[in-house]
Parts: sequence; C-alpha cells; structure tokens
Amino acid sequence: MTALPTLTMDEVAKHNTKEDCWVVLYGKAYDLGKFAKVHPGGAKLIYDCAGKDGTALFDPIHPKDIMDKLLKPALTMGVVDPATIKEEHIAKAEVKEKKAAPKKKAVDKAPDAEIVEFVKPPLAGMLNTFDFESVAREVMEPQAWGYYSSGGDDEITLRDNHMAFQRITMRPRILVNVSEIDMTTSFLGVSSSLPLYFTATALAKLAHADGEVAIVRAAKKAGVPYMLPTLSSYTLDEMLEARQPGQELFSQLYVNPERSRTQEYVEKLEKNGVRALFITVDAPQLGRREKDMRNKFTQQGSDVQGDDEDEGEVDRSQGATRAISSYIDPALNWADVPWFKTITKMKILLKGIQCGEDAVQAYKAGVNGMVLSNHGGRQLDTCRSGIEVLPEVMQALKDADYDPTDFTVFIDGGIRRGADIFKAVALGAAAVGVGRPVLYSLASYGEKGIVRMVHMLQDELQMVMRLSGTPNVASITPNHVITRNLADHIVPLPVDNLVNGTYMPLMPAARL
Amino acid sequence: MTALPTLTMDEVAKHNTKEDCWVVLYGKAYDLGKFAKVHPGGAKLIYDCAGKDGTALFDPIHPKDIMDKLLKPALTMGVVDPATIKEEHIAKAEVKEKKAAPKKKAVDKAPDAEIVEFVKPPLAGMLNTFDFESVAREVMEPQAWGYYSSGGDDEITLRDNHMAFQRITMRPRILVNVSEIDMTTSFLGVSSSLPLYFTATALAKLAHADGEVAIVRAAKKAGVPYMLPTLSSYTLDEMLEARQPGQELFSQLYVNPERSRTQEYVEKLEKNGVRALFITVDAPQLGRREKDMRNKFTQQGSDVQGDDEDEGEVDRSQGATRAISSYIDPALNWADVPWFKTITKMKILLKGIQCGEDAVQAYKAGVNGMVLSNHGGRQLDTCRSGIEVLPEVMQALKDADYDPTDFTVFIDGGIRRGADIFKAVALGAAAVGVGRPVLYSLASYGEKGIVRMVHMLQDELQMVMRLSGTPNVASITPNHVITRNLADHIVPLPVDNLVNGTYMPLMPAARL
Amino acid sequence: MTALPTLTMDEVAKHNTKEDCWVVLYGKAYDLGKFAKVHPGGAKLIYDCAGKDGTALFDPIHPKDIMDKLLKPALTMGVVDPATIKEEHIAKAEVKEKKAAPKKKAVDKAPDAEIVEFVKPPLAGMLNTFDFESVAREVMEPQAWGYYSSGGDDEITLRDNHMAFQRITMRPRILVNVSEIDMTTSFLGVSSSLPLYFTATALAKLAHADGEVAIVRAAKKAGVPYMLPTLSSYTLDEMLEARQPGQELFSQLYVNPERSRTQEYVEKLEKNGVRALFITVDAPQLGRREKDMRNKFTQQGSDVQGDDEDEGEVDRSQGATRAISSYIDPALNWADVPWFKTITKMKILLKGIQCGEDAVQAYKAGVNGMVLSNHGGRQLDTCRSGIEVLPEVMQALKDADYDPTDFTVFIDGGIRRGADIFKAVALGAAAVGVGRPVLYSLASYGEKGIVRMVHMLQDELQMVMRLSGTPNVASITPNHVITRNLADHIVPLPVDNLVNGTYMPLMPAARL
Amino acid sequence: MTALPTLTMDEVAKHNTKEDCWVVLYGKAYDLGKFAKVHPGGAKLIYDCAGKDGTALFDPIHPKDIMDKLLKPALTMGVVDPATIKEEHIAKAEVKEKKAAPKKKAVDKAPDAEIVEFVKPPLAGMLNTFDFESVAREVMEPQAWGYYSSGGDDEITLRDNHMAFQRITMRPRILVNVSEIDMTTSFLGVSSSLPLYFTATALAKLAHADGEVAIVRAAKKAGVPYMLPTLSSYTLDEMLEARQPGQELFSQLYVNPERSRTQEYVEKLEKNGVRALFITVDAPQLGRREKDMRNKFTQQGSDVQGDDEDEGEVDRSQGATRAISSYIDPALNWADVPWFKTITKMKILLKGIQCGEDAVQAYKAGVNGMVLSNHGGRQLDTCRSGIEVLPEVMQALKDADYDPTDFTVFIDGGIRRGADIFKAVALGAAAVGVGRPVLYSLASYGEKGIVRMVHMLQDELQMVMRLSGTPNVASITPNHVITRNLADHIVPLPVDNLVNGTYMPLMPAARL
Repeated sequence: MTALPTLTMDEVAKHNTKEDCWVVLYGKAYDLGKFAKVHPGGAKLIYDCAGKDGTALFDPIHPKDIMDKLLKPALTMGVVDPATIKEEHIAKAEVKEKKAAPKKKAVDKAPDAEIVEFVKPPLAGMLNTFDFESVAREVMEPQAWGYYSSGGDDEITLRDNHMAFQRITMRPRILVNVSEIDMTTSFLGVSSSLPLYFTATALAKLAHADGEVAIVRAAKKAGVPYMLPTLSSYTLDEMLEARQPGQELFSQLYVNPERSRTQEYVEKLEKNGVRALFITVDAPQLGRREKDMRNKFTQQGSDVQGDDEDEGEVDRSQGATRAISSYIDPALNWADVPWFKTITKMKILLKGIQCGEDAVQAYKAGVNGMVLSNHGGRQLDTCRSGIEVLPEVMQALKDADYDPTDFTVFIDGGIRRGADIFKAVALGAAAVGVGRPVLYSLASYGEKGIVRMVHMLQDELQMVMRLSGTPNVASITPNHVITRNLADHIVPLPVDNLVNGTYMPLMPAARL
Repeated sequence: MTALPTLTMDEVAKHNTKEDCWVVLYGKAYDLGKFAKVHPGGAKLIYDCAGKDGTALFDPIHPKDIMDKLLKPALTMGVVDPATIKEEHIAKAEVKEKKAAPKKKAVDKAPDAEIVEFVKPPLAGMLNTFDFESVAREVMEPQAWGYYSSGGDDEITLRDNHMAFQRITMRPRILVNVSEIDMTTSFLGVSSSLPLYFTATALAKLAHADGEVAIVRAAKKAGVPYMLPTLSSYTLDEMLEARQPGQELFSQLYVNPERSRTQEYVEKLEKNGVRALFITVDAPQLGRREKDMRNKFTQQGSDVQGDDEDEGEVDRSQGATRAISSYIDPALNWADVPWFKTITKMKILLKGIQCGEDAVQAYKAGVNGMVLSNHGGRQLDTCRSGIEVLPEVMQALKDADYDPTDFTVFIDGGIRRGADIFKAVALGAAAVGVGRPVLYSLASYGEKGIVRMVHMLQDELQMVMRLSGTPNVASITPNHVITRNLADHIVPLPVDNLVNGTYMPLMPAARL
Repeated sequence: MTALPTLTMDEVAKHNTKEDCWVVLYGKAYDLGKFAKVHPGGAKLIYDCAGKDGTALFDPIHPKDIMDKLLKPALTMGVVDPATIKEEHIAKAEVKEKKAAPKKKAVDKAPDAEIVEFVKPPLAGMLNTFDFESVAREVMEPQAWGYYSSGGDDEITLRDNHMAFQRITMRPRILVNVSEIDMTTSFLGVSSSLPLYFTATALAKLAHADGEVAIVRAAKKAGVPYMLPTLSSYTLDEMLEARQPGQELFSQLYVNPERSRTQEYVEKLEKNGVRALFITVDAPQLGRREKDMRNKFTQQGSDVQGDDEDEGEVDRSQGATRAISSYIDPALNWADVPWFKTITKMKILLKGIQCGEDAVQAYKAGVNGMVLSNHGGRQLDTCRSGIEVLPEVMQALKDADYDPTDFTVFIDGGIRRGADIFKAVALGAAAVGVGRPVLYSLASYGEKGIVRMVHMLQDELQMVMRLSGTPNVASITPNHVITRNLADHIVPLPVDNLVNGTYMPLMPAARL
Repeated sequence: MTALPTLTMDEVAKHNTKEDCWVVLYGKAYDLGKFAKVHPGGAKLIYDCAGKDGTALFDPIHPKDIMDKLLKPALTMGVVDPATIKEEHIAKAEVKEKKAAPKKKAVDKAPDAEIVEFVKPPLAGMLNTFDFESVAREVMEPQAWGYYSSGGDDEITLRDNHMAFQRITMRPRILVNVSEIDMTTSFLGVSSSLPLYFTATALAKLAHADGEVAIVRAAKKAGVPYMLPTLSSYTLDEMLEARQPGQELFSQLYVNPERSRTQEYVEKLEKNGVRALFITVDAPQLGRREKDMRNKFTQQGSDVQGDDEDEGEVDRSQGATRAISSYIDPALNWADVPWFKTITKMKILLKGIQCGEDAVQAYKAGVNGMVLSNHGGRQLDTCRSGIEVLPEVMQALKDADYDPTDFTVFIDGGIRRGADIFKAVALGAAAVGVGRPVLYSLASYGEKGIVRMVHMLQDELQMVMRLSGTPNVASITPNHVITRNLADHIVPLPVDNLVNGTYMPLMPAARL
C-alpha cells in the first residue's frame, strides 16, 4: 500500500460533476462517480456531495470505515488537509418540506379520518411486536422505513414468513406440573434467557442514532446473543466496545472476493472473542425491493431525463450487481468451505439454507450448523420460510445419521410471537433469530424498546410453555404441534366479482 | 384462625398510598398494595380506594366472599367498626364523560354514517345468537365487553372456534318420519331439553346486575343444566339459593394450592346436591388477552411514569402469574387426580383436554368424563377447537376399549347455531357447553334474553334434526356429517397487492 | 261435505279482532285467527283484514284455491252474500311511505355515491344471469326480494351452490370438428333445447303480475320443460290453460297428510298430460330464512308488546311447523313410496336427495329418477350442493348396477352460467333445474326477460361446448372436467388483523 | 376473379341505411350490412359510415387488407373513383364529451379522493409489469382497454393465469458459483436473450399508433422472437418491412375455411423467412368477454329499440359465430394436420393445447411442438393455465417416449415476473410467451416501453437464477420448484357475514 497524496479542498472542489465526482469522507477524498450509480441509498445523495466534504451527511448512517470496506484502493484519491476545508465545502442536507402529510397519505386510515399529528404512545402501551412496527412506521423517515420494511418483488415471502407459523397448530398437554417454567437454553456454547438471538441486520442507524451500539446493550439486558452484521452503521470496534463483561456475540459474514480482507476480518472477530461465524450464503446478489426502489426513484425523480432513462436504468441495474459483487463474492461455492476452517477456530455456520440436500451437504462439509432463512423475505420471492423448511431439513439430517451435538439448526424469518418460538423449537430448531422486531423497537423507543420487546416475547413464551405442559425447553417436542398444512401454499381462486356484486349480505340486528 | 382486631376507619384511612394501600370491603380492611398489581381489573381501581371503603364500587361485580377466596389470611388487617365509616370514607366512581361517541368510533360502520344514539331492538327482533352479540357490544361497558369478547394473543383460536363448525358439512337423509322431533337427552344423570348446558364463565355481573342468579333461573326455564363458576360475581350461597325445585347443577372447579380450601368448597357443593365437578385443567396461567389489556392500559394511562415503566411491566406480568397461582395451582398434575376421588362422590370430569393421549389417560385415571375445550379461545392461541379435537379423542378412546356408559365427552367453544350442536353430537359429544351466548343474551335482555337464546337454538336444532332425518338424539350418527376438511388450517398466501391494484373488476349491470 | 251456511257481511264484520278473526276471500268467510300466526307472509297482513273482505289484497300473490289447499274444512265459516259487501268492508293496502331510500341504504354502493333514482337498463343490456339479479334487487318490493333471495341460516349453502361449480375445472379438447353444435337433448321422454328445465318455485306473482302464466309461456318459447309448483300464485287450471300446443310440463308435489287430497291433485295432473311428478322430500319443515324473517319482523314491529314477546315467539315458531305440517306431511317416508305408484302412471321422481345411500334406495324403490338438490339453499345450511353430491351418487348407482335408461338424475342449485350446465352434464346429470334466474328475469322484464335469460345460457353453453371439443350433449364426459377440489369446504383461518393492520401494501405506479 | 366495376361516390351514398349499408375503405366500396352485426368493434361504428368513405376512421386500427381477409369477394361492390369523393362523403369521428371523469369513476380510489387529472409517470418509474398495466389503464381509450383487458365470462381464468405461478414455490440451492448468469437460450432454431417471446395479439394499434411495427422493432432490441399475429393492425408486408437484419420471426395462424387463402398466407410467410408457424387451435369461436361487450353496448345504447331487442340479440350472437367462422374454420380437426406439412417446410406448432392426451396426439401427428395456453383467459373460463397444464403434459410426453429434440413445449398466460419464467423453464417449457405486458408497455410508452419491460424481466430473471443457484438455463430443473398445490383450485367457503359483522377486530397501537 503506497502513501496517499495530500490534497487541498480546493483541488477536490474541482471534481464536482456527476461524471467527475469526488467526495471527502472522514478526511479522505474518494472518486465516487462510478460508485454513485450503485449506491444503495441512491445516486442523488452522492451527487449532492460532489466536490464537497460529505462526512456530516454520511455519518448518521454509515460506519467510519465504510469506504475502506467497499471501495477499491485506487479510488481513494488522497488525504485532505483539514485546514483547507471551509464552511462552503461542507455538504448540507436539503431542507425538505414537512413529510407528515404525504406519509399519512399512505396510511390506510378510515377515509373520513382527519389527518392529525401522530402522538407516540408510551412504551408501556406496547403489547406485542406489531405495536412496535406500527409505531416505527409512523416515526421513521419514509426512506428508512422503506429500506427495512420492504421485501423481494411482490413481498409474498416477506409476509408468508409470519403466516407460515399460523399453519402450525398447537397440541397442548394437560396436568403437567408447570409451576416453574424454565425458558433458558444454550446454543453454540452460549447461554440465552430464551431460545432466541438477535440476527444481523444492516445499517441500524437508519432506525436510531444509537444503532448497533444500542442493540449490543439491549442484547445483554435481555440475556440473548447478538449476531453482529458486516454491513453495520457503527464500526466493528465501536460495536465490540459496547459489549458488557461476559457478554457473548456472534458475527455474520459477507465473503469478500478478496479473501485476504475476509481473513483479516475473521481473525479480528476471533481475537475479540466472538463465538461463531454465520456465513451468509443466500445473497450473491441483493434482492429487488420495490418499496425501497420506489422511494429512491421518487426522491431523485426531478433529475430524470427523457429518452435515455431506459438505458441508464439498465446500466444501473447491471452495475448494482457488479458493485455489490466487489464486496460480496457471487462465486462463493462449496469448494470454498474448507478454507474457512483453516483460518478460524470459531464455529462456522451457513446462513440461508433452503432445502434438505444443502443441509446434508453442509453437515458433510464439516460446518457446525446453519440458519434456515430466506433473508427476511428480501431476496427470492415465493420461496419458503425457515419454519417451513425445518421439517424437511431435520428429516434429511436424520436420514444422513447426523450427530445433533455437532450440528446446530436455527431458523429466522417472521417470528412475532412467543408461540412462534415454541413452534420452531418443537420442530427441531435450537433457537430463532429476530431481525425487524429489533429494528422496529429500536426505532420506536431506543435500547429500552428492544428490551421490552424481548420481555414481551418471554411473557408470551412462558405462557405458551405453561399452557402446553412443557416446563422447560427440552420438554418441547414435535408432538406438541401439528404441521398438516404447513407446506400448503394455497392461493384462493380469483374472487367472483359478479356473485359478490349481487349478493346482499346478512347483518346482525344491531348493525342494520 | 385467630380473632381479627377491630379497627376504626380513621386508622384505615392512613394507609392511602400505592405503597401502603388498605381497602375496606364488606366490613373488613385488607392490605391490597401487592394485590393491586395483579388485580385482573387493573391496579387503578384498587388505588382509587386506598384508605377508603370500596364496598360500593366492588359489589356490582364481585362476590361478597371474593377476598376470602383470593387473599392470604395475613393480609386481612381487621374488622372495621361500622360506626366509624363516614361519607367521606366511601370510595365513589369517577364520573366519566359519556362513552357513546368513542365506543361508536370502534364500530365498523360505513364511513359516512352519522353517529346516532343506539336504539336497542326489541327482544322479539333477536333471530340468532349473533344478534345478541351485536346488541351486547353496544350496550355493555367497553371494559366489560373487552373482558368477555377478548381471546388469547391474535384471537385466531377465538374465532376459529366457530369457524371450525363450518368445516363440517351436513349429510342429511330423506324419507324418514320426522313428524315428532325429540331433542331431549340426559347426561351425567341429568335430563336436559337439548344436548346443551351453560358452561361456567367468570363474573357475570359484568354483563348484568342479576349475574349468575339470572343464569340459574334461565337455566331452569330453558331446561338445561348450568355449571356454576368458581370465579362468580355472586357467592356460591346466592347461586344455590336461586335454584328452583328439582333443578340440577354442575360446578366448575379451579384447584387451590391450599388443598384444604378446595376440599371445603367441594364438600359444600356435594352437600348442596351439585351433580358433577368439572376440574379446569387448561388454565395453570391466565391467557394474554390484548383487547382486555388495551382497555386497562388506556384506562390507567395517565398514571404511567416515564423510564421505569418497562421494569414495572415486567414485574406486573410475572406478578400476575404468581398472583393467580395463589389461587389456581399451576402444579396440579396427574398424580393429584386420585385425591379428588377420595373427597367427593360427585362425578369428576376434566375440563380443557386437547388431544387423544390425555383423553385416554383421563379415562384410565378413573374420572367420569371430560370437556374438549380451549377455554373459549382465551388461553393458548392457534390451538384446536373442541369440535376439531373430538374425532381424534373418540378414536383414541375406542382404541383404548373405553366404556361409553362410564365416561362422558363434552365439547365447548364456538357453538352459535343449532347445527353446531348437531355436528358435535354426530361426532360423539354427549352435549355442548355454551358460554358467551349466555353472557351476551344476559347483557342484552337479562334472564329472559337467555331463555330466548336457548329457544332459538332449540328451533334451529329441531329444524336441523328434522331436515337431517334424525327424529331423536340417539339417531344422530357420524354418517350424518362430513369431516374431510375439519382438520385443515388453511392460511391463504398473502394477497398479491399489485395484481389486485391493477385488475378492474367486473360488475353486474345494476351496480355500474 | 255439508253445505256451507250463507252469511251477511255484517255478521262477518263482528269477528274483527286478533283472537276472533274472520276474513272473506273469494266470496267465502274463513276463521283465520290461528292461521295468522303461521302465515308465511306474517300475521299482520291477516289481522289487517280481520272482519273484512281481503280478496283484493290477497289476489295479487295467492291462487284462488289457496284456502281450500291450506285450511281444514271446519274453518270455512260460510258463503258471504255478495250483495252485503260494501265499500267499507273491503280491506285496503296501507299506504306506505316511499321505500326507495331505505332500500338503497342496504345497497353496498360506494360511500360517497349519491342516492339516485334507479334507472332500469334496457333488456339488451343484460349480459348474464347476475345482471338480472342485480336489476331484480332494485325493482322488486323488499318483502318479495327477501322471500326469494334468502337462504337457510347463515346462507352459506345458498352461496356455495354456485361457488361449487368453480371448484370444477374445465379440461377442453382441441381439433374436434365443432362447426355444428347440437345442444338439444331429451329427458323423461321430453325434448328440450338444452339440458335445462325450469324448476318449481313458489308464488311467482311476488316477482311479476303474470307469475307462473308468464313462466309457462316463456318455457315454450325457450324450448324447455317447466315443473309446475304446488305452491303457485296462479291455480293449476290457470297454469295449464297457459300451455301452448305440444308443450310438455312436469309437476312438483308437496305430499298432503290427507292422502286423498294428494291423490286428487295427482290424478288431475295426469289427466292433463303432465309428464312427471317430482315429490319434494327435503322439506318436512320450512327452513329458517333470516332475511325473510327480518323483513317480516320489521314490518310488524309496531305490534310487538313487551314481556310476553318471548313466549309468543316460541309459540309462533312451533306453530309454524305444525301449520305447514297440515299441508306438507313430515311423516312421509320410504314406506309411502309404493302407494304413489298405485295412483299414477306418470313418471315419479324424488326431489331433494343428498347422498349415495338414499339414491340407491330410491332406485331400488322403483322410482324413475331424482333431483340432487338442497332446495336452493333455503333449508339446511352447510349441506352440499347438488353438483357436489353428483359424483358420489353416480358412483353409488354404478356400484348398485343401476340401469341408466330407467333412472334419470338431475341436479339443481346455483346454475348461473352455461359452463355450469356443461359441468353437471359431464358428471352424469341429464339436465339441470334453474329457479331463481327464472324469477329474477321475470321480475325484471317479464316473460321476455326469461326468454332472454335462457338464450344467454344457450349462447354460453354453445361456446363452452365448441371450445371443449364436444359437438353434442352425448359427447360430454367426466374426462372433460376436473373435480379434484369439488368436495373441499375450505374455511381460511381467521384473518390476522395485527399483521394486516401493520403491513403497508405495495401499489403499482399509477395507483400511488 | 372478375374485374370490379368502377363506382362514383354518389352511387355509394345511396346505400346509407342499416339495411342497405355500403362503406368505402381504401378506395373500394363494400356492402357491410350483414357484417355490421358481427363487427367485433360493434355495429354502430359501421352504421355511422353507411354511404360514406370510412377509411379515415378505420385506418387507425385496421390493416389495409382487412376486408380482403374477412369478406367474401361478392360483397366488394366496386372501385370508387377517387375524384368523386368529396368532403361531405368522408365519415368523421363523433366528438365525444371528455371521458376522464367517467373513466375515473371506475377506478377504485379511496372514496374521498379528489378526481385529479392523471399525470403519466416517467418511464424510469416503471418497476414491474404491473406498473405498465396501471398506466395503460389510465392512458388508453376505454374501448381499447376493455378489448385488451377483458377475459372470458367471469374472468376467473384470466386472473388465475398469473395466480397459478404463486402456487409454485421456489426451492433455491446455495453455494453455487453464480458470478456469471447466462440467460440466453435458443428454441426452434432461434436464439433469444432469455427464454421468452412476444406472442401474437390482435390489433396492436388499439394500444399505440405504431402498433405491430413498434413490437417488431422492440423485439429486435430486446433480443427475443416475435410471433406475428394474423389479425394485425398493420399488414403482413408492413410488419415484415419493420424487421431488422438478422431478426427472426414466428407467425401465428388462424386457419381459413378456404384453405387456398391459408396456403397463400403460409407460403408468403415461408418465403419471407418466418421460422415457425403456430396454428391456433383454441379459438373455433371467440370467447364471451363481458367487459368488452359492456363497453360496446354502452356505446351504442341509444340505438336500442324496445321489444325486438331480444331477438336481435340472439341473431347477433349466432351471427357472430358464423361471421368469425367465415374466417376461422370451426371444422378444423386432427385430419387436417397432415395437409399443413405438405404446404410448408416451416416448423409447425399447435397453440392452445390443454391436456396430456392432446399433447401426445400432437406429437404423434408429427408437428414440432406446441403452446400450452388458454388464449390469455379470453376463451373458456375456469379452465387451467398453461403453467398448470405443463406437468401433466411433460409426464404424458415422457410416458409416450417422446424425443425432446424434435418437439418443443411452450406456455403462455399470466407471465408477469422473472420468477414466472424460471418456474416455466423448471417444469419443462423451452420458453414463455408474453402478450398483454407487450401491449400495455406499448400503450404506455411506445416501443421503448416494451424494451424496458423486457429489461425488467431480465433483471428479475437474472436475480432469480443467481439466487436459485442456476447459472444458466440448462441448469434449471424441476427440483428447483415445488408444485404441491399447483393443481389446487380452492374456493373458500362463502364468508360468514354474521360472524364478521359482530367480531371487533384487534388493531396495533398506532392504528387505534
């Protein structure tokens, strides 16, 4: 690595067009002209910083080391002499008109409802995870909400992730002594107050200024492990610093095409005592999330020019794949697995398995477990939820004579109730990962929102275990649930509008 | 039991804070500081009586012996000299603003409907059980409605309880002489005008001032047995006094951790000629009922303090379990069953069985029968309704060579139509229990409302039996119904909003 | 039969109370005090005629011989001297306020729609049977609409009757010469322009002043047989007079407890050349039709008195059964079947069979066929539609080695499209009966409305046959349809309102 | 063919009534009195041109050779001397009132939405095929929209075509090297940029003035084959002229009863290098499309006369069949297939097969493949979609030991997402045809709209292939999808309105 030249801000300021676009971040100047087109947050935000110092705008969401992670070294143009940065060089946020009204427009309120200012309910009024989601939808910036809440394509899988749990029916037992309910468990050598962990989610500052730091703290208070994300808003060091004594962490991993970067990152994790590494295998490309795309398009709509839009769009899309592939390797395959075992002694798991064959292959490849996941419904639409894949995988592993003490199965996706946790455990999961509920409770009430969210799930799980006659986690078995319709993906025949349009419905006396 | 000290009201009045909270009820002072936090009606109602005589406020809903049932003796602080109780010592109801408007807000009326004063229809206008429910929703206090109408968690099971009956299809026979239809039957040695009984429900005064006393009287007029609730609004003595000559009663039982209290209660029931004892086995903990929780939270919202809410909530929730467990024993288990047979000669049944294995175990334990029930959908959500469990249980009992003359199977949950009764009998139930329809008809029109509700079910059942070619209860067989889809819990795939948002529906000519 | 006394109108006029209620109809005085309580049209209409000549009010709906059919001879009090009937003795219709507004209220128009006067579209604008239904709903009197459109209890079966056809999927064949499509067929020795007949429906004058007379004429023009109803608005003689040369008729039969009346009626039918007798076996009691009950209650609501309503209601209901049983024998059973074969040489069929066992028993009893029917969804709710029962019945008959030339199977219920006729024929029906579509097209446009309705079904059936590769009725086979889900009665799990209430739906660009 | 007489416009102008109706088109006078009644666009449009030169009105939608295709030679009355055509002889479009308001009325906007002028979003805002459809619905003439968007009868199949794809679940594989995704494929000897072609659709000028010419050009840019329609808006010559160097085309064929016309057309196609001929076998008669019928009726409503409408309608309907059968032969059958092989060396395929038996018969008849199709849901309602038929057909062909190199299977109908293409390929289709998405993107943005629409499907398919672990088309197998519920046509039981009308739904905190 050669030494970077030192630049004055006046030099940087010359590169202030879309075609020639330098931006200063944390004291270094980067050439972001190409990167702008694939910026997950949209090109406009980059162009607005062309020839300027964008640190103040980037800092609220991005980690300080973001550019070192994402950019090829050749695009780092130099170190900027801080003395040369003046007030007029600093990029500022556009003052936007108040968003309240347009945001309300999207809310499906009764048509006669007046548009009133939203009043956030007190934390004690949150009764379930849906309450947090409903508050987050009101208090978050539309862009942030769009990024978190969106799913792939038609968002069928996004929503099916939770609905799949309702295709599992409870089968409780009676007259078991349930005066004491023990929800604690341990997985991957880590104790947890219930069979649950916080899964990795990107860019937590979009939810709250405290971002991943608040999640680390809340995880400790709630007594559950947190899987650090690679694409965090805070740096790895900041997240590790937030750790409390004795607190155990996992880490998610996107594998870089430059394996040395990955090795460096993994070694740092291991050195810092992180317990397990979850290699994401379901995101060789980012999914199409139209809610998010619509938001970005609307935001930068005024820039759009007539006839050449189309080709521009094609470039953008292909570019996006290439861009992310500079950081997440789409060539990653089974032949790469042995290498990971050579660079770390941490437990290694695969995150994003979707069928029995791959589960068996993972077991045979010698990894320590896996997460059945569809990436929160954000990648491939109309695929199955983790809970639906679970019975197929457990059967395939049994058929392959696997050793359960060696190999741990998790699921994530759609967990919103204590009963969902119970159902996953009943079908063989060691624990479940939750993502959006963490972000929504963080967005709504910060760290203590997350803690309350977990306490509510504990309350619910405790009740479910007591009412099911299962005083501890080990006593929960497949016999406590019914999966008859779990694999049914029923799409009702299209509505017969003529029948509906002529039938006059019955109504009870007081509704006439 | 030592003699209680005599207190003056001035002494009681000193204990008038949340932390030090004494309340006078029916002449005795109780220390209710801890109890307030677990009061099913919410803490605020207790705190409002701190240092005062709360009898007038408690009497409309609670039985006179409520505190002796629920409280440890040590918390009874003394007998209050009635002469010392002055006007200012008597707790009074807060004057609330008229509720009509906010209550209306929740009603899903057409958006342009004017908010008009609700006019109760005449009793003769009630055509089905839903009519009563619709009237009750309008005339009941929101808190009382919330308590009765709510179910566990997402209320899936609450609603599935009735919908399950529609998964059973009728298979009627023709050309049978049905000039006379005999709906009468007998179960547990008691005759009934149809295969139905009133099941135990708590706190009937929430529906109507006449509470359980009206239900006892209506049961006699309707010719059906009533299962007295342990958690009644009237005392056991008051309920028994309302009994008419020759009227037969059952009793529900929550088992107290102090078995001597339970024994005393059971012996009193037997002494008073109650026929059968239904031990509730599906409520080692009360379910989470969010409609009810929301109501209570809204009511006491103004008390809520900032940061420490969260921890308070956790305490409350854990406390609630402990509190109820001071009265309902969560340790109750199969080993306790033989003891009940030693303390009474009444028939003993288990209420709340949910699977075949437990049914067979109950039979082998020597009890006289059971109720397949999910507690009105108020406990464990996404479990099965009694009617759905019935075929599995009847098959398991047959496989265990059970003797039907010894062992009676009932179901409850979701019965709203005469056809529902028919379907339950066809699949092997001796009779069905109804709960909410009794409460809603009581709330709407008092005792005579209940009688009419039963008469309507009789009308419906008579018609169903006549049209099915089954002139009496014994002639109803499994061959008269089809259960092909009874066990199907189908959750349609999430709606494809883009498809729906683009398709322009067909409409018939007169609706264009 | 003894001679009737002659009465003056002044004598009749003394019996003018509910308890002592004589009414003059077509020149005879009847004691209708008891009958009023079971009058299908409601008691009020009878009481309003107490002590008066009600002929003018009854004539628009009832046949002239109604009282001879329904009433015991002892209640015919005498012949009234016409000269004594003065203007003041003649009962007149109450002048009602314009119904338009309240009727509109029930229409599910968009909330912001102005309430405009309904403009009937021209006949040529009717494109399908639903169009006629939508017009009929607007132009019919609410009471008449309520009577026709209502079904049993929750009207599940009423609506499932049509929906069941959509559970059958078409399986068309290609490259068949379909230049000529022959839809004609013959059944019970009668030719028909398509496999369809008009089934019996009561009281056609409620739809149109021309009532059954218009239906007889339309049947001839459309080239299909009509099954005359026993409970007609016109007398049998009037219906037979409307017959055109060469026109063939069937007749439906309610069996009277006094068999001599039935014998007399059957002999008259045979003498007049009616081809076949369809004995209704699914109506030993009339179903509960709440839309109709609600209408009647609303109409006579002002009469209702306080406390004794309830008992009154019970009487009325039990009375209704008894009343109808004075005309329709609920004791009718298999042992009665041979007698019918002794009194007529007409073909005898049973109308209302619902399962394979009864079908086989009917075949063995020597009748000539049957109709698989649930009485238009007006009797037993949640039973199966005729089309759903058809495969079970055809299989049972085959298993019993039946001779198809001897025994004809029809279905009715829910036929609204040419494709529905095709599906019924494919599964083994000789033809289908249509009821409400006849009444709705009659109500909307009179006789020519019915003719157009049939022509539209012919258009549709012709197209379906051509597109299925079946040039004539005989070429339609079970292989042309798929019945995989026909027997599925799927009730989706209750909606998860919290999920729905938090999810923000995707919308296409132009709907944002 | 004898020479045509020369006419003056004054002679033509005498034939200006419905009964005697001559119209001049492209210089020739035709007797269109009979044709008017079967004109797919409605009779009124013809009558409005009676005795006039209608060229200006017809040209925007019809090809110049339309009358030579459709009309018997005897109805061509002569060549009109152009000099005799004056201004007053030229038929002009009726000036209609602005349609915006009534069109908006049909849009299901929120009731309180103001009716605002529609603003077309920029092309870059189109994120999926539904976006184009939503824009097309706003910008197209209602008649044109009605013609394209309508389906047969209740439009169940129209909508089920897309929904069927959601009954197929994805089963992705992980850890496959997907750095390069190759979507290209070839079928019928033609290369394509993805497994997709533009299928034939009639009258593209209804969408856009550039009609089929724009589609030809867009197909080249998008790199996919286009199947030319027989019923085009441009002439075959015009479409062929639009072809770019090296561009490959297919052609759809309606078979004329006069085989010489068909032979001539086929020979012209072959001579011009068209690669394959798709003989439509599912349209011996045009389906009933009520949206389209309703539009036409509304348009000509003012002409309608009272009593004789009905018979007129019957004539019209029967006439329509006859009329189309003058151009599309309803007698076409298997015996005709060998003839086609004698007149051309192009590959011959059958378009519109719906079951395994017909697929095998087609294979044995020696054709080169087929399209599983239901004609876009425009013909027979409640039949299966191509994707649903596909597994049955592939199995039947395998059972018949077919040679896949000889016989190519396509599907069309309901393709709206890249995932739909993937699912079709996984189950055995060589490629899929898209029709309406082409028309809607053409209507919205012209040629470049089509190109962008394909690019979006490519983006989606690329992502689906990458996330499924299938780097090229050949690697996509049946094991990558789950078809468990594909054949399920579930119609939920009718809604229980009384239950729904009484239940008070749960709502999350922020929605209260």
